[in-house]
Amino acid sequence: MINLADYVEAAREKVDPAVWCYFEGGACDEVTLRANAAAYGRWQLRPRMLVDVTEVTTATTLVGTEVSMPLGIAPYAMQRLLDAEGEVASARAAAGAGALYCVSTLTTSPHREIAGAGPGPRWFQLYVLRGRQQTLEHMHEARAAGYSALVLTVDLPYLGRRERDLRLGFETPPSGLELPYGELFDTTPALTWRDLEWIRTEIPLPFVLKGILTREDATLAVEHGADAVWVSNHGGRQLDGVPTGLEALPEVVEAVGGRCEIYVDGGILRGTDVLKALALGARAAFAGRAFASALAVSGEQGVAHALTLFSEEIALGLGLLGCTRPDEVTRAHIQRAPA
Amino acid sequence: MINLADYVEAAREKVDPAVWCYFEGGACDEVTLRANAAAYGRWQLRPRMLVDVTEVTTATTLVGTEVSMPLGIAPYAMQRLLDAEGEVASARAAAGAGALYCVSTLTTSPHREIAGAGPGPRWFQLYVLRGRQQTLEHMHEARAAGYSALVLTVDLPYLGRRERDLRLGFETPPSGLELPYGELFDTTPALTWRDLEWIRTEIPLPFVLKGILTREDATLAVEHGADAVWVSNHGGRQLDGVPTGLEALPEVVEAVGGRCEIYVDGGILRGTDVLKALALGARAAFAGRAFASALAVSGEQGVAHALTLFSEEIALGLGLLGCTRPDEVTRAHIQRAPA
Amino acid sequence: MINLADYVEAAREKVDPAVWCYFEGGACDEVTLRANAAAYGRWQLRPRMLVDVTEVTTATTLVGTEVSMPLGIAPYAMQRLLDAEGEVASARAAAGAGALYCVSTLTTSPHREIAGAGPGPRWFQLYVLRGRQQTLEHMHEARAAGYSALVLTVDLPYLGRRERDLRLGFETPPSGLELPYGELFDTTPALTWRDLEWIRTEIPLPFVLKGILTREDATLAVEHGADAVWVSNHGGRQLDGVPTGLEALPEVVEAVGGRCEIYVDGGILRGTDVLKALALGARAAFAGRAFASALAVSGEQGVAHALTLFSEEIALGLGLLGCTRPDEVTRAHIQRAPA
Amino acid sequence: MINLADYVEAAREKVDPAVWCYFEGGACDEVTLRANAAAYGRWQLRPRMLVDVTEVTTATTLVGTEVSMPLGIAPYAMQRLLDAEGEVASARAAAGAGALYCVSTLTTSPHREIAGAGPGPRWFQLYVLRGRQQTLEHMHEARAAGYSALVLTVDLPYLGRRERDLRLGFETPPSGLELPYGELFDTTPALTWRDLEWIRTEIPLPFVLKGILTREDATLAVEHGADAVWVSNHGGRQLDGVPTGLEALPEVVEAVGGRCEIYVDGGILRGTDVLKALALGARAAFAGRAFASALAVSGEQGVAHALTLFSEEIALGLGLLGCTRPDEVTRAHIQRAPA
Repeated sequence: MINLADYVEAAREKVDPAVWCYFEGGACDEVTLRANAAAYGRWQLRPRMLVDVTEVTTATTLVGTEVSMPLGIAPYAMQRLLDAEGEVASARAAAGAGALYCVSTLTTSPHREIAGAGPGPRWFQLYVLRGRQQTLEHMHEARAAGYSALVLTVDLPYLGRRERDLRLGFETPPSGLELPYGELFDTTPALTWRDLEWIRTEIPLPFVLKGILTREDATLAVEHGADAVWVSNHGGRQLDGVPTGLEALPEVVEAVGGRCEIYVDGGILRGTDVLKALALGARAAFAGRAFASALAVSGEQGVAHALTLFSEEIALGLGLLGCTRPDEVTRAHIQRAPA
Repeated sequence: MINLADYVEAAREKVDPAVWCYFEGGACDEVTLRANAAAYGRWQLRPRMLVDVTEVTTATTLVGTEVSMPLGIAPYAMQRLLDAEGEVASARAAAGAGALYCVSTLTTSPHREIAGAGPGPRWFQLYVLRGRQQTLEHMHEARAAGYSALVLTVDLPYLGRRERDLRLGFETPPSGLELPYGELFDTTPALTWRDLEWIRTEIPLPFVLKGILTREDATLAVEHGADAVWVSNHGGRQLDGVPTGLEALPEVVEAVGGRCEIYVDGGILRGTDVLKALALGARAAFAGRAFASALAVSGEQGVAHALTLFSEEIALGLGLLGCTRPDEVTRAHIQRAPA
Repeated sequence: MINLADYVEAAREKVDPAVWCYFEGGACDEVTLRANAAAYGRWQLRPRMLVDVTEVTTATTLVGTEVSMPLGIAPYAMQRLLDAEGEVASARAAAGAGALYCVSTLTTSPHREIAGAGPGPRWFQLYVLRGRQQTLEHMHEARAAGYSALVLTVDLPYLGRRERDLRLGFETPPSGLELPYGELFDTTPALTWRDLEWIRTEIPLPFVLKGILTREDATLAVEHGADAVWVSNHGGRQLDGVPTGLEALPEVVEAVGGRCEIYVDGGILRGTDVLKALALGARAAFAGRAFASALAVSGEQGVAHALTLFSEEIALGLGLLGCTRPDEVTRAHIQRAPA
Repeated sequence: MINLADYVEAAREKVDPAVWCYFEGGACDEVTLRANAAAYGRWQLRPRMLVDVTEVTTATTLVGTEVSMPLGIAPYAMQRLLDAEGEVASARAAAGAGALYCVSTLTTSPHREIAGAGPGPRWFQLYVLRGRQQTLEHMHEARAAGYSALVLTVDLPYLGRRERDLRLGFETPPSGLELPYGELFDTTPALTWRDLEWIRTEIPLPFVLKGILTREDATLAVEHGADAVWVSNHGGRQLDGVPTGLEALPEVVEAVGGRCEIYVDGGILRGTDVLKALALGARAAFAGRAFASALAVSGEQGVAHALTLFSEEIALGLGLLGCTRPDEVTRAHIQRAPA
């Protein structure tokens, strides 16, 4: 296991295809899924020389949460399908590394068990479900569990058409699995910008909007008080044929104009992917499949190793760019690759 | 059969190659045929979030005809080569779905049988043949059969060079087939813009010009009273190496300037393909090979299923775009994909 | 044999590789050879509809020579390596079709035998050799043989590095072959613009410069009295990594500004390739490998068939473009294909 | 062995993969390594005709050193892993050809043995190591050995992540090898622009900065007195996903504005690659892997042959471009290839 791609490949071989399809697959023809992977290759880093880079740190803060690196574990569902300890393993590994772990609404571990993994930077991802009472329960559970920010996913009014799941017969929820919620994916298509006020009132935590892909929505997010905009196409699992997070990043950065933090996800497998996101204006990036793969292959140890790989690659990349800290990476450190 | 591409693949395996070549093949090196399929991947949809999309409709009107979705069955010839019921099966499936079916001049079923499929949105596609008397007969037959619009195909002064047919020995008309017309493809290269007046006088129906690929011809179409311009390269079967309908769409939209409706065809296999056409200014799209494949694989049931797949994908796509109706999809919902 | 590519493929199988390498190969890594083939795909034709194209002609004139179509047989050497009759077979087939045949300096048939093929449009291609006396002999032989124009090849001061020949051991001249000239490829690197005057004085025929790839040289050609500029990269056999003829055409057309005729070669296998050349400003195109392949496969009959294929495809293409003659094809009939 | 690519292929088959990985591999996903090879294909040469190119020379000078061609042997380490004579074989072959050989800090032959290869244009490449005393020793050894310029490599504050080495278990230094330095790759990340003054004082030789990839650093190099800027991404072995030397060349040329010489390396396998570098403003190019391959395949003879191949290809290319000397190649001789 030399790099994250090794984990993805190993997971593909290890996990039952009828389960792995859910974690690896995208929507429809998976155009966006492939685009996510290809997006980083469209940009080149511009390394600067003869800077003293004896001391390099990867640490930063994200809406006030202190993290050891500008790369976190994206929220992804039902981790116990991949590992007996699931979310708890992820939480322990992340806490050990001081890395941010964003827990999914669709967790397969109770929040108290996750909290039992010990202190570490941890956020909660929220779907607003059709049953508003259920949503309220999740929110309060999250607050009680000590999460330091709320990530509201806004790009799932309907579940995307994931044909790999249809072909392989992936069941949601899979039979025989203890799930804390009975109505997976029962999100509400009625959610609008006006509902944000209600949610923020219920949970007065830093508030991140996940699933933004346009300057228009980024502007609305800022106007509605978001503390951060998370640029994402949901791992290529919602509408197929949309921009990648990385491609949408420049227009979002321009629209936001420094008024809130910006994150991005989709296709991140390398420290240099993270550095490209930073150079284009993100404050952090998130990876899902990379960590799901590591979890599936080696459980907590795998996630810990994945975090180490990212951390080492980010640190080395900073040094080779001539930077000593994440926030020294700027737009001048990146350019388009030739077509 | 999860999606339309499944039908295309299944038809390729089921139908005699010496017949299927006619339905699937393009002209010469099939550059345009492949370009049609690739065209949609050059554009990306820009989804908007936090809009109430609880109620989504795909219904619209096309030159006054009410249809259940902005995707119709393009005119394609000799459907009884693929299914015993041929055009009648298509007509029944379309009527059941409330979807538009555009019947070809080169039908292998009598118009009265097609009409017998019951009421449904139905148009007639017309070739002007060398024998003007024959053309008149077709026109009056069409009027009597209750079609609600006339689609004049203008891009076939000569038949394109379809080498796949030549190699596989496709016979036109195939032996043993009852055909209502003896002079297939005997279109006239003498047809000009001035002839349109004569045709419109003979059949006072809404009048669509099919086969336009340039702003120049779109302007002429409007000036000669077309109710709609149908942007098409004839499924890549006429001149090889021309623009795809989707590529030509922006210049046609600009030239037309809202003075008539615009449709497009070529390579449509996904609901998102239709949405991209709408976003670029088309009011509807048409698919031929997708429906021919479904007809060949499962007859009327196949066509009905194909229509359901399109309808579901269009509805889901509208919701994920943050739109509740076809006409809410605008130029702001689309952008070029990176090259 | 449905199209010209069929002939190329068949020739590759029929001819001894150690001979065919000479006819099919390019220089070094064959980047330019492949670029020639790919160049036409970078452009799209813009067909116009509803024009009366009942009568279509492909005939035109080239520096005064009347030809049946805007596509001629490019000069290529040693045709008796491919067919027992070699240049004589080409000459007969071309004369029969009324098509232009440009005979190479490096012919393996005496000019009187070629002339014996009967009257037909025929030009002579000239290399200026190190031995000026030899050059003079060629020129006077050409004049005596009744050629109606002189084509001076200017891009061979040195022979390109044709590694396929080196690998396969192609011998120049191959042993056992009766060759009229003893010093094949012994061209002079000392040839300059000033020498053109001398040549034109010796042979007062229309004068074509073959091998121009830049606006700078096109301008010089006009200033030195060329009747036509032939844009060519020598079939990708000289410097590897240069522009294709088609790519260089627009800048040459601009530089020439209508002051002389312009031709192009390289990679032509389709009637639409010729039409694209016309649309970009060439008055004619030339094909070499296509005719060499047909000659190798079926001798005179093959060349005649190749000419028929080109003629039919050009005529059909004109009709589908809405043009009735070669000179009706204009810059408005072409656009860049999407990248 | 017709061309340099033949040597690369042959070396790959001959050398132990656990050793060859070090010479051929790049960093991480080898995106930059592949980009280096692809970079030359993105440009086209513009050949000029009818110039007297009877006499062509490839000779030039590089910071005062007279060389037989504008292509030198780039510094690469541990050549005795490939051939028993290693650096001495390279030195002899280069001296015989009058070509520049830049000796690596990480040489596996004593400088006096290299000097024993006889007089020839020879430079010394320097890493500044963590132990400053060691660095001083290298510098003085170099001066004593008669090198005519100092090449300071500035892009290795840390060693890049070379995963091929990790996978194949390449050991640095390989066991059993007599190495003059004990601390391979122990370069210092503390090196800054200010340290250049100290080095220049210690060795008053022409001073080349190797590893520049941006206009910003090129400007700083000039301002700090560099006699030449060597544009390089270290053969794709440091940060993966950076510009190729060729891509960075135009902006470096613009920033330098003629104030010092400019060289480039990365992916050079052809004489035309060198000519493209010259056309974009470099005074010379350097090749590493091509020479390492030739050394591995045939030792000194291989390197001599590789130099001959380059020399012949450069001379032929000059002639076909219409140039008689390297400095006649200008920006007007190159253009972007179509995408």
